[in-house]
Amino acid sequence: MVTPDSPRIDWVAADWGTSNLRVWAMGADGAVLDSRDSDRGMGQLTPAEFEPALLALVGDWLGQSATPVIACGMVGARQGWVEAAYRAVPCAPVGLPMTPAPVTDPRLSVRIVPGLSQTRPSADVMRGEETQIAGVLTAAPGWDGVVCLPGTHSKWAEVSAGEVVSFRSFMTGELFALLSTQSVLRHGMAEGFDEAAFDSGLAEGLSRPESLTARLFTLRAEGLLAGLSPAAARGRLSGLLIGAELAAAKPWWLGRDVVVVGEGGLSSRYARALAAQGVPARQVAAEDATLAGLKHARSLMELS
Amino acid sequence: MVTPDSPRIDWVAADWGTSNLRVWAMGADGAVLDSRDSDRGMGQLTPAEFEPALLALVGDWLGQSATPVIACGMVGARQGWVEAAYRAVPCAPVGLPMTPAPVTDPRLSVRIVPGLSQTRPSADVMRGEETQIAGVLTAAPGWDGVVCLPGTHSKWAEVSAGEVVSFRSFMTGELFALLSTQSVLRHGMAEGFDEAAFDSGLAEGLSRPESLTARLFTLRAEGLLAGLSPAAARGRLSGLLIGAELAAAKPWWLGRDVVVVGEGGLSSRYARALAAQGVPARQVAAEDATLAGLKHARSLMELS
Repeated sequence: MVTPDSPRIDWVAADWGTSNLRVWAMGADGAVLDSRDSDRGMGQLTPAEFEPALLALVGDWLGQSATPVIACGMVGARQGWVEAAYRAVPCAPVGLPMTPAPVTDPRLSVRIVPGLSQTRPSADVMRGEETQIAGVLTAAPGWDGVVCLPGTHSKWAEVSAGEVVSFRSFMTGELFALLSTQSVLRHGMAEGFDEAAFDSGLAEGLSRPESLTARLFTLRAEGLLAGLSPAAARGRLSGLLIGAELAAAKPWWLGRDVVVVGEGGLSSRYARALAAQGVPARQVAAEDATLAGLKHARSLMELS
Repeated sequence: MVTPDSPRIDWVAADWGTSNLRVWAMGADGAVLDSRDSDRGMGQLTPAEFEPALLALVGDWLGQSATPVIACGMVGARQGWVEAAYRAVPCAPVGLPMTPAPVTDPRLSVRIVPGLSQTRPSADVMRGEETQIAGVLTAAPGWDGVVCLPGTHSKWAEVSAGEVVSFRSFMTGELFALLSTQSVLRHGMAEGFDEAAFDSGLAEGLSRPESLTARLFTLRAEGLLAGLSPAAARGRLSGLLIGAELAAAKPWWLGRDVVVVGEGGLSSRYARALAAQGVPARQVAAEDATLAGLKHARSLMELS
């Protein structure tokens, strides 16, 4: 809660994804003075609705003069507020220029962090994860290694000399959501998550990633024939998909220094799976990485 | 059209799947006297609604005494009219007993062809395809080989000495439907199907099936970065999924005698892909196989 006696808000950090908007009121010393959430994600907004959605959340944080707002994520997509053109790797995860968003309120000055693109060895894009990678690097500027960012479209990024060298996306999270709620497998799914079933699915997916689409159907068959429990079906589905991802991503993690950026349960499962392969991965909370990356973006703007 | 002067209808063949019901009026000599379709598939019916849905389609075909109706497909699923318990492989694709469905109209006598189940080497089930496999065998009773049945849940079945020895399902068709209409890839999809893009996706899927979930995301990235056309995206998505299926199914087709049972375009693509691997597959139309299999089921009932 910010009151008239509170320290002055210097700028606003914003993580604006497809489903949610999260904002932090930042002091000049880098302290977080307040934070708020809204479900007004990019997915439900037309371009004209972004400014009102932002003002609804941060309006009472603003002073008379323009407060800088640094935003990352799908807000900069073609279907977002304004398209922030991708920067092509190899490059620093976050760099100038950032893209101004059109505002009418003089108390706002909004800049959007561009996503990254790659044309070789395979076409790929990211928006939001570049900020998290920058956040990881702020804690270890000279670090060379691999950042794994599990999620809807999991990313693996190779980082060297302060730059993202290359990256690769996997549709793991979106496939899990579609298969568990929209496919024939939904009949055998429910709340709950069996960790032992996850482990066995992971082992299957890792050892035979090429037969993923056949193994998926065994969840249905075992539900019908062997009474596979809904929690075991969910756990094994997750394990099969993550196992297949890890198998295909092996060149990214084998013998490498890996940081996993993500939320609790999912991130821990990736870290545990990598540890079982002899790769001790370090975990960084997604929110910490995002905020550190946005702070880094803010510092670049002050230099410019 | 059946009129009072038409040959007498001896029995009714029914292919009753999740989405559709197709019926054939059969003469005692095996001739098809009439056929009709309805969209009243299993997916939209409660158990009490099956008999009215059937009568709406075949009521005017029926005489005073009970006319046998032989039905195959999801009508026999747990969520269907009445559950027709699976028969466990190895066994003949179609065999007795068939499961009677509860009817109130004395002009109907309905039997449902049971599906097949397998517990080893992997849990699996089929409903409807067993009838098509029986249909393939009626044309070649002593044939040993592999039947490939592309579709929502593609099946590969090994047939020997008149029995299904084992089989394996792949979620290829359902994944194509979900990914092209419900996932982030839908933004780059539209009507149209680019056959050259299918071929390149097929080659990718066949050679690197383990990286399927990463290759899928390249369709999105190429749409954003390289203007991949919607028809090319659809074609390549299909190719990637079928290529991954063929890679995992290699032990089923390599050096084997393969029959592909399916609809025009899709079935031809499987046959063409197999031919490119040096396997000259024979194609059988899905409807022909189903009808031949239902005739075989009818002949078994007459013997009983």
